[in-house]
Amino acid sequence: MLATLIYGERDIRLEEVPDPVLSTGIDAIVRVVAACVCGSDLWPYRGVVPTNDPKRIGHEFVGIVEAIGDDVKKIKIGDFVIAPFYDCDMTCTNCENGVSTSCLNGGWWGADDRSGHFADGGQGERVRVPHADGSLVATPGQPDPALIPSVLTLADVMGTGHHAALSGGVTHGSTVAVVGDGAVGLCAILASKRLGASRIVAMSRHADRQAIAFEFGATDVVEERGEAGIKHIREMFGGIGPDIVLECVGTAESMDQAIKSVRPGGMVGYVGVPNGGAELPIRTLFNRNVGVNGGVAPVRNYIHELLPEVLDHRINPGRVFDLELPLTEVAEAYAAMDERRATKVLLRP
Amino acid sequence: MLATLIYGERDIRLEEVPDPVLSTGIDAIVRVVAACVCGSDLWPYRGVVPTNDPKRIGHEFVGIVEAIGDDVKKIKIGDFVIAPFYDCDMTCTNCENGVSTSCLNGGWWGADDRSGHFADGGQGERVRVPHADGSLVATPGQPDPALIPSVLTLADVMGTGHHAALSGGVTHGSTVAVVGDGAVGLCAILASKRLGASRIVAMSRHADRQAIAFEFGATDVVEERGEAGIKHIREMFGGIGPDIVLECVGTAESMDQAIKSVRPGGMVGYVGVPNGGAELPIRTLFNRNVGVNGGVAPVRNYIHELLPEVLDHRINPGRVFDLELPLTEVAEAYAAMDERRATKVLLRP
Repeated sequence: MLATLIYGERDIRLEEVPDPVLSTGIDAIVRVVAACVCGSDLWPYRGVVPTNDPKRIGHEFVGIVEAIGDDVKKIKIGDFVIAPFYDCDMTCTNCENGVSTSCLNGGWWGADDRSGHFADGGQGERVRVPHADGSLVATPGQPDPALIPSVLTLADVMGTGHHAALSGGVTHGSTVAVVGDGAVGLCAILASKRLGASRIVAMSRHADRQAIAFEFGATDVVEERGEAGIKHIREMFGGIGPDIVLECVGTAESMDQAIKSVRPGGMVGYVGVPNGGAELPIRTLFNRNVGVNGGVAPVRNYIHELLPEVLDHRINPGRVFDLELPLTEVAEAYAAMDERRATKVLLRP
Repeated sequence: MLATLIYGERDIRLEEVPDPVLSTGIDAIVRVVAACVCGSDLWPYRGVVPTNDPKRIGHEFVGIVEAIGDDVKKIKIGDFVIAPFYDCDMTCTNCENGVSTSCLNGGWWGADDRSGHFADGGQGERVRVPHADGSLVATPGQPDPALIPSVLTLADVMGTGHHAALSGGVTHGSTVAVVGDGAVGLCAILASKRLGASRIVAMSRHADRQAIAFEFGATDVVEERGEAGIKHIREMFGGIGPDIVLECVGTAESMDQAIKSVRPGGMVGYVGVPNGGAELPIRTLFNRNVGVNGGVAPVRNYIHELLPEVLDHRINPGRVFDLELPLTEVAEAYAAMDERRATKVLLRP
């Protein structure tokens, strides 16, 4: 089959690889219907995270189950399924605590599972899913093709934006600012809106993204960054800042922006994969009683809550996709996102 | 009058200073009935925080109102009052948001207020309180003398322990570990118990403090620290750790202990004044979805909730005092706490 590999900085290749095979009795083979490129895929693409050896890449996909192991109970051949951006069993204590990203038996796409069998990357034609009954969520019937982009966001960005909002404690009446206008930041706006935030400020400089931000529920846009951005945001909320800031980028600058924009006693919900090595300034947090909560989003735990709203057209997170390409053009998908010609690219094998 | 000054490392002196005078119309003069030494007073005492010039010290006191400014409305001469460890107006946005330690018009004992008038330190005979109607809470009538130690803890340590528990999100059924067995750590145990925690582990090596911990509601004690302590705590909670760890010390080691002991998706509530300059390890927090929340405790906001329980003998946080001295022996009070001969010392002017 065809699958995507990263060879190094800005070197993405679609290559022939072995077809996956059932290996453990509890796994499944999924034929990928749609996949996408994640903002976090750009870290190795840009060389910020080094790639020492070529490896399979991609961790967001939906598809149709082609084969299941003998011990798979819930998932059936022919099911249309959503996979989260990681594998998990949904039965261990951490999964039951709502933190399936810390599954005691889980793993990552494009790497060996804990039994030593390979779990394919998501940007390919097929994926072996180690814990089929845990990781996969079947939709009721085959979804309308028009809904597939929104369904696909439940594999990562919509669930991740939701996690930012939950981690920040967004609830009815909260005031919120969102740092980052990528797909996750936009989904954090949508998540804040559905959780009842009364005012949502999008920090964005791009007209097209601002438009989606407003469509998703943003009430205001701030274009400034750094000290000017902090000052502007604070001024909008009585000089002290909003209740909650959602950090959806992962740089030292974006976290600094978030921590200094939120009001005393407020909370920073963060989901940006930390890059750059800057640690959190405890004295600044302590003096202003600013909490920081978040991490690698347990999106599998959120699919059951969010999927019905996607299927009912109540939320339309698939709007974050602004480019669709065949899998054969995966290298162009990366380039378009790297060069900010696209917010998020959907790939069709 | 007599008041305590710190001159430098291990140099505490009681000296004659000018009597405070009403200065702004909204202030009050309080005759101190009981004061105490805070764990955070030990940082300058030990020279960890340098003292460049002699200065007044002490920030926890209760007393009787001797004089009030013309514009004071709520507080009356003769009231027995509790002062939080800072001055605040209780009318600004931050105070109304529950974060009176970030009062837009507030200040600290032993320093000038924002109008340039001195607010005395708490370890003395009298204190000018800048915002009398904001900072001070009058008890209903004069409290039973036996209750004064517990009432005094509402000025700082009991409210601070409560803030740790609230910041960590302790609620009915939570599992909790507390790092630090000083007065604040012990109060955090008591606060967790009254908030409904189902299991509370005290990390303590001192038999006398362990005894108070059990009296306050601890269900278990762990004596190990560092890696051994982390391993022991995790093992007690299914190998993954408790829901919440309360950090009540303020060193890099204690925060590391807290972050690594809590379960994935858990929360560290912290109130230890950060010393040593170690920042928070964002990647460790991110990977395990561990949140960190807390800061300088807005104890003024908690007095109304906690005071009735103190007056009804439902909670007895005054048990943290294990030594009582006249104000004239304030230097010995510091030495006793520094040398761990006492957990917390009550001073009577």
